[in-house]
Amino acid sequence: MTGTKYGFATRLDLPYEEAVEMTKAALQGEGFGVRTEIDVKATLKQKLNADFRKYVMLGACNPPLGHRALQAELDIGLLLPCNVIVYEEGDGAVVSAIDPVSAMSMVENPALQEVATMVKAKLRRVIETLGGK
Amino acid sequence: MTGTKYGFATRLDLPYEEAVEMTKAALQGEGFGVRTEIDVKATLKQKLNADFRKYVMLGACNPPLGHRALQAELDIGLLLPCNVIVYEEGDGAVVSAIDPVSAMSMVENPALQEVATMVKAKLRRVIETLGGK
Repeated sequence: MTGTKYGFATRLDLPYEEAVEMTKAALQGEGFGVRTEIDVKATLKQKLNADFRKYVMLGACNPPLGHRALQAELDIGLLLPCNVIVYEEGDGAVVSAIDPVSAMSMVENPALQEVATMVKAKLRRVIETLGGK
Repeated sequence: MTGTKYGFATRLDLPYEEAVEMTKAALQGEGFGVRTEIDVKATLKQKLNADFRKYVMLGACNPPLGHRALQAELDIGLLLPCNVIVYEEGDGAVVSAIDPVSAMSMVENPALQEVATMVKAKLRRVIETLGGK
């Protein structure tokens, strides 16, 4: 597993399209539905006529934990859902998930941090599951 | 204008549904398209049979600035699009926009911070415009 300060990632030696499908399945396995999907390449082509690599932003939500987060901090919808991105890289693909503890670190709310820690563990398992395949 | 450490908000003395439409129009006025929309109340009812206030998460994207952000930091898709939320509060509604400078503060990338500052100014104008009406 690799990553940034705000997410954890893995590289899949699979075509982009297969990586996207596997990512969605792995998210489902941890109780996340994909609520939003932005095809970045298509959007940039359509809006700006700009070329970009294949890249998708998936907005993942685990309903019980999303509900708990909103009950703990009404405004946390500003930082939801949890994004998972997939983009092509060479002849494979990179999958990266947000680290919600890092992303919500400016929110001073212990009840929310507890939920963020639970979501982080689940998203970490999603990336580990993908990386182990 | 009020807010949290990670967003700025205003209250509208309007029914929720009108506030949502005005918010979308104000976003469009600053060059933001709404790429995603999550009806929180409907989702929580459907998935958990839980009752929640009327609440929507709008994923707003300004294509040229989104493109610049992705060019500056490929993984920033983990923190895009910029969320704007609208929820009912008493007999009115609250509209709140993410502060992208705060939300991206853990990303150590001056080129990205420059874009985040530009987006913050635009989102601030959206909230000011709504608050002035």
